[in-house]
Amino acid sequence: MRLRHKPWADDYLKENDDIVVQNPFDQKGKWNSLFSEDQPLHIEIGTGKGQFIAGMATQHREINFIGIERAKSIIVSAVEKVKQAEIENARLLNENAQDLRDLFAENEVDKIYLNFSDPWPKTKHEKRRLTYHTFLQQYKGILKPDGEIVLKTDNRKLFEYSLVSFSKFGMILDEVLLDLHDYQDPENVQTEYEEKFSGKGQPIYRCKAYFSS
Amino acid sequence: MRLRHKPWADDYLKENDDIVVQNPFDQKGKWNSLFSEDQPLHIEIGTGKGQFIAGMATQHREINFIGIERAKSIIVSAVEKVKQAEIENARLLNENAQDLRDLFAENEVDKIYLNFSDPWPKTKHEKRRLTYHTFLQQYKGILKPDGEIVLKTDNRKLFEYSLVSFSKFGMILDEVLLDLHDYQDPENVQTEYEEKFSGKGQPIYRCKAYFSS
Repeated sequence: MRLRHKPWADDYLKENDDIVVQNPFDQKGKWNSLFSEDQPLHIEIGTGKGQFIAGMATQHREINFIGIERAKSIIVSAVEKVKQAEIENARLLNENAQDLRDLFAENEVDKIYLNFSDPWPKTKHEKRRLTYHTFLQQYKGILKPDGEIVLKTDNRKLFEYSLVSFSKFGMILDEVLLDLHDYQDPENVQTEYEEKFSGKGQPIYRCKAYFSS
Repeated sequence: MRLRHKPWADDYLKENDDIVVQNPFDQKGKWNSLFSEDQPLHIEIGTGKGQFIAGMATQHREINFIGIERAKSIIVSAVEKVKQAEIENARLLNENAQDLRDLFAENEVDKIYLNFSDPWPKTKHEKRRLTYHTFLQQYKGILKPDGEIVLKTDNRKLFEYSLVSFSKFGMILDEVLLDLHDYQDPENVQTEYEEKFSGKGQPIYRCKAYFSS
């Protein structure tokens, strides 16, 4: 989803440097020093408009959250949501991270959220899916040994693909839900996209996976 | 699904001893000697009325099939189907196998089909689900190293449970389909149950898993 170009976005992101980290690559290995509390670090790849990260950070003050979103025109909405939430434990990065290992050190991250990632349905684009094995290698390189990946999507084929990809990479599935909203998990924080599509009756899939030691 | 008691079933199963194996425990380790061809062995746990095994054996003459069904009143229909198909490569067992390792030797089986197994939805009955870890241990004990388990079900929660159970047991998922009939796999042979429920629009789930070496 692309919003129209917002020329003022650059300035806005710089002005809000308490929320938007300006030189994120310099923070590798010392992310927790940015936050007021030294506590577990959860990251979201593809934060979009920020409803998930703002909601999670509000609900879980005992965790530090980082949301990564490459689209300037979209991340501005996330900045607004984090501002409104008046929380200390969320930061945003406007980056198109080619390799997360340039941003985070080994064992620095406790959990990775992949929410409604682009499914890249064509086989020739498999390498771009965020659950392709080269990405799993990156996640393994930054997650703690007991860390996990939590994937939510409404895209059936991406979900099927991801379960197999996790498994073939040697990861263990800890949870598989084929209709998340049927379970009415009170802990579930919806993304904007999730709210829209589950409202239309589409099932939302979720799984949790970790690397076996 | 239980049909009414059929007192003649015992006699019928004995009369058809070319199809229904009478002393199956004696065949352990030498199943292929029962068949006219020495070729890969696939077994189905819970054969029901036999549409799947009769269809598969007709489509795959290069494979020997064994269907196991504990309910006498149901397996008689499977015997009829195998008879009508006029095939040499299918046998049926009327057994409630407590442990498949009593029936099959190590490395004797190439593939195990679990079709629409009882979901045993209550947590207290978890041990009875055919993808509970004690059953996986049995399957591992009779499958060849590159052998696989193919699970089909319309029961969402059994499917979710089974994916996690396979994974936690160290198995690798090779395929996960959340709407089998949407793929229109020309190789798919439907069970009676599958035909009925997919006809009502319910998705059929299928996965394939193997033990990692």
